[in-house]
Amino acid sequence: MGIFITFEGCDGAGKTTQAKLLATKLGQTRDVLSLYEPGGTSLGELVHSYVRSHGSGEINEASVGQAQFDGMKDFDARVDPIAELFLFAASRAQLVSEIIRPALEQGRIVICDRFADSTAAYQGYGRELSIEQVTKMNEVATGGLKPDLTILLDISPEDGLSRVPEKKDRMEKQARDFHRRVRDGYLKIAEQDPDRFLTVDATQSAEDVQALIWNRIELLLKPQAEQRLL
Amino acid sequence: MGIFITFEGCDGAGKTTQAKLLATKLGQTRDVLSLYEPGGTSLGELVHSYVRSHGSGEINEASVGQAQFDGMKDFDARVDPIAELFLFAASRAQLVSEIIRPALEQGRIVICDRFADSTAAYQGYGRELSIEQVTKMNEVATGGLKPDLTILLDISPEDGLSRVPEKKDRMEKQARDFHRRVRDGYLKIAEQDPDRFLTVDATQSAEDVQALIWNRIELLLKPQAEQRLL
Repeated sequence: MGIFITFEGCDGAGKTTQAKLLATKLGQTRDVLSLYEPGGTSLGELVHSYVRSHGSGEINEASVGQAQFDGMKDFDARVDPIAELFLFAASRAQLVSEIIRPALEQGRIVICDRFADSTAAYQGYGRELSIEQVTKMNEVATGGLKPDLTILLDISPEDGLSRVPEKKDRMEKQARDFHRRVRDGYLKIAEQDPDRFLTVDATQSAEDVQALIWNRIELLLKPQAEQRLL
Repeated sequence: MGIFITFEGCDGAGKTTQAKLLATKLGQTRDVLSLYEPGGTSLGELVHSYVRSHGSGEINEASVGQAQFDGMKDFDARVDPIAELFLFAASRAQLVSEIIRPALEQGRIVICDRFADSTAAYQGYGRELSIEQVTKMNEVATGGLKPDLTILLDISPEDGLSRVPEKKDRMEKQARDFHRRVRDGYLKIAEQDPDRFLTVDATQSAEDVQALIWNRIELLLKPQAEQRLL
């Protein structure tokens, strides 16, 4: 089996940057597959553009209007939060069965920018849906697949969104509260599964963050036998 | 609250015909909203065309190629059965929250061609996914909403598909077994909830089927008080 690494965190935490840096570095010696969620499959892309163009729940009001989806009919209808939860689960189930499992079975390293913990943090903690329901749905969607390592890039909503200027303007109070719940949710999830998580302060420079991640990756890549000798 | 009526059964059972006949007749005196699943919302239409154009699982092999969806990228990738289950759940959650609940709250009669029992019959019994998982997912998607009356038009796969000639040619052995499990599944579901179900032999003429349905509808529409006097 290969190695499955995921990046998690709020908008602006630097997930995409760090995932790419890691993929480039690992790719020099290993066979790496880089993915992001929702996406990676035609179904994932469809979910991505649908949710973006329709907005959802009470939060992304401003996102209605972005990225209009071709063929959309009732543009004003918002995505129901439960429907959104199911859409992300569908996208994840497809990504796991079509792409991630086969790649891991070939011994590849799979790096995914967001995975099941995003749903727990955003839909579970952020939108305050039932954590139990979200967890159950994640288990069904992933068929029980868990990352070997999850890198949580932790940052406050204010700091994170200051790096994404087009989003900052939209930070109404309601959205601020939502993003705080998401961040706290992420920290809770990481606390409950310390072996899987590496939590990094994402306000540091990209180089420092990269160095911390690489330390942990080197440990992960060391053959088990060698680790036992240490 | 209004009245919620669903039609269920295998392909070729006459659901669409009977749902339309009922909507026309009821519409003479009542405010009727006719829907079908998956559909009725932009999300439902998207799910419908996506699943049709990609085929799914091991059954609808021949359906890949139908109704190509614009913007589709990896046309050959099949929909994972669990992803399909989540897509239908998403479509249903959206339909319930955006259309069905508001209509029932306005006192309308809602007639839906397929609803949650289709997922139980096709995904649960037909594809042999966990019935418990499918049931749980239906509960989450519908928020517990159940039809007041479900009309099951029962027909053997052979008789049903003989009415849909373009599908009959594709009835490979595997598909026949699938459709038999779906039919038996429907009958089991109806047995478990006899107060909600009216099961009708769909090999009868459309007029006879319509008459049997209308008998039951008249009972459903009679004011409770009048029923007690009978």
